Amino acid sequence: MRKHIPDATVARLPVYLRCLAMRAGTGTCSSEDLARTAGVNAAQVRKDLSFLGAQGVRGVGYDVDELKQAIRTALGLTHEFPVVIVGGGNLGRALANYRGFREWGFSIAAILDVDARRIGSTISGTTVEPMSELEDLVPARGIEIGIIATPSDQAQIVGDRLAAAGIRSILNFAPTVINVTASEVRVVDLSTELQILAYHLQERSEA
Amino acid sequence: MRKHIPDATVARLPVYLRCLAMRAGTGTCSSEDLARTAGVNAAQVRKDLSFLGAQGVRGVGYDVDELKQAIRTALGLTHEFPVVIVGGGNLGRALANYRGFREWGFSIAAILDVDARRIGSTISGTTVEPMSELEDLVPARGIEIGIIATPSDQAQIVGDRLAAAGIRSILNFAPTVINVTASEVRVVDLSTELQILAYHLQERSEA
Repeated sequence: MRKHIPDATVARLPVYLRCLAMRAGTGTCSSEDLARTAGVNAAQVRKDLSFLGAQGVRGVGYDVDELKQAIRTALGLTHEFPVVIVGGGNLGRALANYRGFREWGFSIAAILDVDARRIGSTISGTTVEPMSELEDLVPARGIEIGIIATPSDQAQIVGDRLAAAGIRSILNFAPTVINVTASEVRVVDLSTELQILAYHLQERSEA
Repeated sequence: MRKHIPDATVARLPVYLRCLAMRAGTGTCSSEDLARTAGVNAAQVRKDLSFLGAQGVRGVGYDVDELKQAIRTALGLTHEFPVVIVGGGNLGRALANYRGFREWGFSIAAILDVDARRIGSTISGTTVEPMSELEDLVPARGIEIGIIATPSDQAQIVGDRLAAAGIRSILNFAPTVINVTASEVRVVDLSTELQILAYHLQERSEA
């Protein structure tokens, strides 16, 4: 039984994991290194990692491979998660091709679309199938996570269908808020970081 | 002269703005509503918004249009930011088509690629131009923000070229860490939210 980890720490673990992935083969990594790349302070890094039972060695740091394994275990990334992508347009294609997903143990179990011109085409080795197959595919392929990569006006309908098909974890890339009470919905707004950049840009130009 | 806003608040403002965008025409919005959608508590919302000088009315909430305007002003989203996207593949195409960017005042000033098969093609009304034009286009079109949508192994080279061309704000969508000291680099790791979902999924199945 794993220990409950605070949500704010959970949100930072993928960032640490990404920093560590860039250091493969370097042996050790200090909390200061992780802090700098993740944009927090070193004390926060040490506190976050203590939830995983990871202890650095003073003056040396953390063992990169051990720490990666500890974070993967804490995040539950030790087995493969079959994912369905709804939407075979540019965004769906980009996501299916996205190396980061496979690296962390997410496999693209299905890509679905309603557009007959896309059905039957292949994206990164996965054939696009009709959306009408959703309810059969989810149990048959053990799919646990759904990704919405449709236009905004389809996102709510797709979210409802994913939930009805038994999907309890949904990642919504459409730039709109949807309400699906039966499932946990997380939103990826691709413009959020752009807005933060714009703020800092203004600050610099006024300084 | 605007007041300095803490980084953690800046990071939440785009989330509030997204919530508010969904409420256009509804008149008012309580701090509880914003808190629920943004995943923080209402006291945090009120504290964040107080940096903008926004005051809600007890029992009524914030005026949606006024608050949207206050957040846009605070984030510096009152003028248009011309953006260059490097990489005209699936990810670059998805970003160029992404409605969220235009909504918040980012305009796609150029899409660049090194692949002759992509150069000359049109994405959302913008013609893909050769990467060799970068240094001329940046000053000519007043471009201030660069988006890296290339494969990982090109990200560092592209980051260096963007910085050399005078770009001080870079958004990196390639799943790798790059080091460009002359510019602020923010990373969008599309798998971060997926990893957080996976953690919660495990927690639920163990509960």
